[in-house]
Amino acid sequence: MRLKLTLAYEGTAYSGWQIQIAGGKSLPTIQGKVEEAFRRISGHRVTVHGAGRTDAGVHAEGQVCHADIDENLTRIDWKRALNACLPQDIRILESVAAACGFHARKDARAKRYAYSLWMHKDRPLPRIRNFTAHCPPLDLEGLAAALPFLIGRRDFASFRNGGDETSDTVREIHSIDCLPGYVAGLRCPDDWPVLTLVFTGSGFLRQMARNLSGLLVYTGLGKISPERIPGIIDAGDRRAMPGPCAPAQGLSLLEVIYPEPCFSPQSAPPAV
Amino acid sequence: MRLKLTLAYEGTAYSGWQIQIAGGKSLPTIQGKVEEAFRRISGHRVTVHGAGRTDAGVHAEGQVCHADIDENLTRIDWKRALNACLPQDIRILESVAAACGFHARKDARAKRYAYSLWMHKDRPLPRIRNFTAHCPPLDLEGLAAALPFLIGRRDFASFRNGGDETSDTVREIHSIDCLPGYVAGLRCPDDWPVLTLVFTGSGFLRQMARNLSGLLVYTGLGKISPERIPGIIDAGDRRAMPGPCAPAQGLSLLEVIYPEPCFSPQSAPPAV
Repeated sequence: MRLKLTLAYEGTAYSGWQIQIAGGKSLPTIQGKVEEAFRRISGHRVTVHGAGRTDAGVHAEGQVCHADIDENLTRIDWKRALNACLPQDIRILESVAAACGFHARKDARAKRYAYSLWMHKDRPLPRIRNFTAHCPPLDLEGLAAALPFLIGRRDFASFRNGGDETSDTVREIHSIDCLPGYVAGLRCPDDWPVLTLVFTGSGFLRQMARNLSGLLVYTGLGKISPERIPGIIDAGDRRAMPGPCAPAQGLSLLEVIYPEPCFSPQSAPPAV
Repeated sequence: MRLKLTLAYEGTAYSGWQIQIAGGKSLPTIQGKVEEAFRRISGHRVTVHGAGRTDAGVHAEGQVCHADIDENLTRIDWKRALNACLPQDIRILESVAAACGFHARKDARAKRYAYSLWMHKDRPLPRIRNFTAHCPPLDLEGLAAALPFLIGRRDFASFRNGGDETSDTVREIHSIDCLPGYVAGLRCPDDWPVLTLVFTGSGFLRQMARNLSGLLVYTGLGKISPERIPGIIDAGDRRAMPGPCAPAQGLSLLEVIYPEPCFSPQSAPPAV
């Protein structure tokens, strides 16, 4: 049986989603922890396929993955069983039975990412420090003026970092929402200098959400005028984009969207 | 010159506020980190006196402490200098010059604590796991019915844990506010099963806020009827209180209140 799992995690302690070996040792990764939990329950290797490979330090509120389990294990409540084996910074939110052809990455129709900023000369408050990137105060009108140049179907080759070998670099950004006062879905007290940018798009190239965030911070700082953005896009080269790749800890994968409700509950839907 | 400092910290990584030696080794504490930062800047030992000794794992949004510094160091911007030396999970929010007789603990007139709960069969979501205690769903009306029995001037000896040798155990609870949907000041999405209890009082005995929270959770679970509370208070003994001491990670010291504005800014007031 093929399972579709929805996960939330804090990425701070991990080298990203994907299993990695460095110097002969396996680094701590989300995929690694989930596969280890499957192995402890089922007694053998289960490969987990994620919808997106979040970088080291990037979080998720709604990552999705699929995995195939033996037919004699279909009566297990996998959400409950996996959560009992997983560390507290990784939680399975939902486990449903998927059609056998379902593929978490290939079937995704859209994704939503949140990028959260702490805009102040002082560094972020302790309890949100792992969920925000630090920048000086931004001109939100300047930042907003940049958005129309980024929304729509475009070739985003200038916004991907090295290591992405995808030949088709056209993606569609459906919307970019600016939410002052929020850090990744949590409403903060009125006097906190925070902002969340929510990107919804058909797909995202490697580090594209972080590069878009870096560009928007630079426009909010007045370092890039919005009118320059079409030229940056047309260049088709990351070196033409003068903004930084924004730090990993500000980013969270909020949601992966699939075309139709082709799943049956494997366990009761969660309240959260 | 005597400095009054206001601090925020995430207590997860620390053995509490107060400097502690165990097995010949000093444990990581907030006081220890702040004194270490003073030593690095001034070159000699500076003792820091906190308004309250938060336990291991307890957080603060507005802890207060005082420290005496040499007259030749009064032109240092201590907020900035200390923050440059402190880890990211401890931040100085404000540094002001206090009257030389000011004492962070003895002069405090009131304190506010927040206790945050995640009320669900599943464990808390990763990003708030260090700031909430986990309990089953509560009957909030049952919990609210207990509050009038706790508010006011009472002998709270039944709500202090061992190790508190204070002879005067009378304290006044000014208010207890129930805030569904909040975790320590942050408004969560509507479907999150969270609750914050905010206790404001003249003072709190050792682990009194956590014992009050434990009692209220038990009334919300129907394990203690509110009418039993006067008897529990009258007993004057912790063994008469059947609720647990609620776990440390749900608690945060929000604010320490002093009688009058007897401080002059040592550095510019912070925006947060």
